[in-house]
Amino acid sequence: MKVSRRSHVPPFAVMEVLAAANSRRAAGHDVLNLCAGEPSTGASDVVRERAADLLRGADLGYTEAMGVPALRAEIAGHYRRWYDVEVDPARIAVTTGSSGGFVLAFLAAFDVGDRVALARPGYPAYKNILSALGCEVVELDCGPQTRYQPTVSQLMEAYYGGGLDGVVVASPANPTGTMITPAELDAIAGWCADHDVRLISDEIYHGIAYTDDVQQSTAASYTDRGAVVVNSFSKYWAMTGWRLGWLVLPDELVGPVDALAGNVALSPPALAQHAGIAAFTPAGYAAAAENVAAYAASRAALLDRVDELGWRPVAPADGAFYLYGNVSRFGLDAVTYCARLLAEADVAITPGTDFDAERGRDWVRLSFAAAPDVVARAVDRIVAWQATLEC
Amino acid sequence: MKVSRRSHVPPFAVMEVLAAANSRRAAGHDVLNLCAGEPSTGASDVVRERAADLLRGADLGYTEAMGVPALRAEIAGHYRRWYDVEVDPARIAVTTGSSGGFVLAFLAAFDVGDRVALARPGYPAYKNILSALGCEVVELDCGPQTRYQPTVSQLMEAYYGGGLDGVVVASPANPTGTMITPAELDAIAGWCADHDVRLISDEIYHGIAYTDDVQQSTAASYTDRGAVVVNSFSKYWAMTGWRLGWLVLPDELVGPVDALAGNVALSPPALAQHAGIAAFTPAGYAAAAENVAAYAASRAALLDRVDELGWRPVAPADGAFYLYGNVSRFGLDAVTYCARLLAEADVAITPGTDFDAERGRDWVRLSFAAAPDVVARAVDRIVAWQATLEC
Repeated sequence: MKVSRRSHVPPFAVMEVLAAANSRRAAGHDVLNLCAGEPSTGASDVVRERAADLLRGADLGYTEAMGVPALRAEIAGHYRRWYDVEVDPARIAVTTGSSGGFVLAFLAAFDVGDRVALARPGYPAYKNILSALGCEVVELDCGPQTRYQPTVSQLMEAYYGGGLDGVVVASPANPTGTMITPAELDAIAGWCADHDVRLISDEIYHGIAYTDDVQQSTAASYTDRGAVVVNSFSKYWAMTGWRLGWLVLPDELVGPVDALAGNVALSPPALAQHAGIAAFTPAGYAAAAENVAAYAASRAALLDRVDELGWRPVAPADGAFYLYGNVSRFGLDAVTYCARLLAEADVAITPGTDFDAERGRDWVRLSFAAAPDVVARAVDRIVAWQATLEC
Repeated sequence: MKVSRRSHVPPFAVMEVLAAANSRRAAGHDVLNLCAGEPSTGASDVVRERAADLLRGADLGYTEAMGVPALRAEIAGHYRRWYDVEVDPARIAVTTGSSGGFVLAFLAAFDVGDRVALARPGYPAYKNILSALGCEVVELDCGPQTRYQPTVSQLMEAYYGGGLDGVVVASPANPTGTMITPAELDAIAGWCADHDVRLISDEIYHGIAYTDDVQQSTAASYTDRGAVVVNSFSKYWAMTGWRLGWLVLPDELVGPVDALAGNVALSPPALAQHAGIAAFTPAGYAAAAENVAAYAASRAALLDRVDELGWRPVAPADGAFYLYGNVSRFGLDAVTYCARLLAEADVAITPGTDFDAERGRDWVRLSFAAAPDVVARAVDRIVAWQATLEC
């Protein structure tokens, strides 16, 4: 029987790497997995303990479609605390991870046929969700000159080229880890507002940043001009499997997102919402900061060895927990490079083709969210394995 | 800035009833809430305890997009146990509630512009999700002659009328509680297979049935001919806020749903999945059966008092936990009837307009998933209040 055209989503190459890694591990190999876009630590004790308490009798039924009021209030407090930005909790929608947030934001903002721009390289789900929802994706070719981030001049080109209804930006970005400067975000947000182009800002790696070169700034400052923020408990608070995220919405999207959420999701997970409140306690922030300190140590060690690794260029790893590097000098396309690195040295990393259909065959992404000693041992193995290649 | 056309979802009238109920309760009134489509009991102790154990150190990170293998195996076991149907766990997708399941099934099966039929009255989210995804909804006017369920002849009419790509059936149904006979399901599934029309069967109220008049049969028997089953832990196992459901898929939709799920949802909630395995233990089934016994007692008491209530006709409440009755003899449209019943007698029920835009103004839905004494007191109040109406 017929399968929809829109379900023909390109498979992720990393899935084959992961399957191979799992079967090697099952066969007794000591595989070092640096594929995953998730912290190895998991949720903090304060969140786990709050959840355990709630399991003793609390009502874990459906919540409001937009999330429980107490959590929305805490998220508003987080904006005050971190960014000195006032956000009315009524404009915050709690979502089922950032994935649920993207689906709701895209549905509320864009119709079938609308054109939405995004950076290449970039997180592939943006593109795949937009396509599944009938939108047309406009890829912006982003390189080292702009920290792999889109610029106003690229948006103008797309706008005057075939029209533009929206743009997705991410800072820090996946896979590059690069950040948008506050001045550039201001320019993009202003241009979008002036041209009725909806700005969607993925801020799920906020809080995981390492450099004073680029300050972290939030599009929540621009929601009065139409911007939408997507965020999550998955990365900074290491709560990936809890499926908890949020949106900060402009006024005109609050009603639509509420109505859509009640239909497509009903409510975000109740236990995660109630326990997630504990993420905003001093203990919750402290546990997250400890994770970030570990990533920072791994990152510093990695950057010290970039010459030795020979990955040139590497994207500036401003934030997140990825090193995105060019491996073309080793003479293998990235999919082959990653397959052989796993088969011959038991290190799993992700080929760039998952993030960039044009140039990704020259790039790989290494996640340093694993424990620092794992990252260090992986680099030893990569360097040794690369030395065996003829190039 | 522009809001999408597809986000103009009609609001649910019950939301106003609920808001008014909450404010009356906050003002000290003893409000009896029979609006909710959820059990008042919550998850069983065995599931809660399993979850509490997992919080002590288990990995609660992302899982496979299709769900953890152990839970998929348990769900397959459930089909063997309840229906004597063999389902390969590879054809089971764990989802974020049945809501997440509907989004995935609709995306995988239908393209923008595809026509999908469903019963009126019916659960409004089917229609609203389909519209948001760009599909065209064909409403089938279903009445007492067919237990408010669609028939093959209605499908033929739609098929030869404007074309038909899919149909959603629900048994037991919301809001009517009525069931499709095994013979009729067999006829619908066969007709759909013969005409390349994708059958989506909502079975979330399976296990909550009261009558020998209509046996419960599953469309999982027809997945080899293209049918899709949607099910959930929310109703029978009373795990609403846990956001856990599943799909049983025909072979050709397994890959597409896996790929779509990895993008639109990433993975279902990890803790709910691992703890949900405990729902299939003897203690898990026993707790669910105890809930069903309480609904059965409430239902029997309600049906004994239908003459006294004067709701005529009522849909045959074969299953689920709803009584759907016609209140037109009281001379008020359903929205007014429900608003006044709440304001004057502190009983909250749902106007039929949420389920049927054509005839719903004559109908109301009473949920008897509340405690039996609450249901009994509510009926007392309704009868007394109705006596005050001039009609």
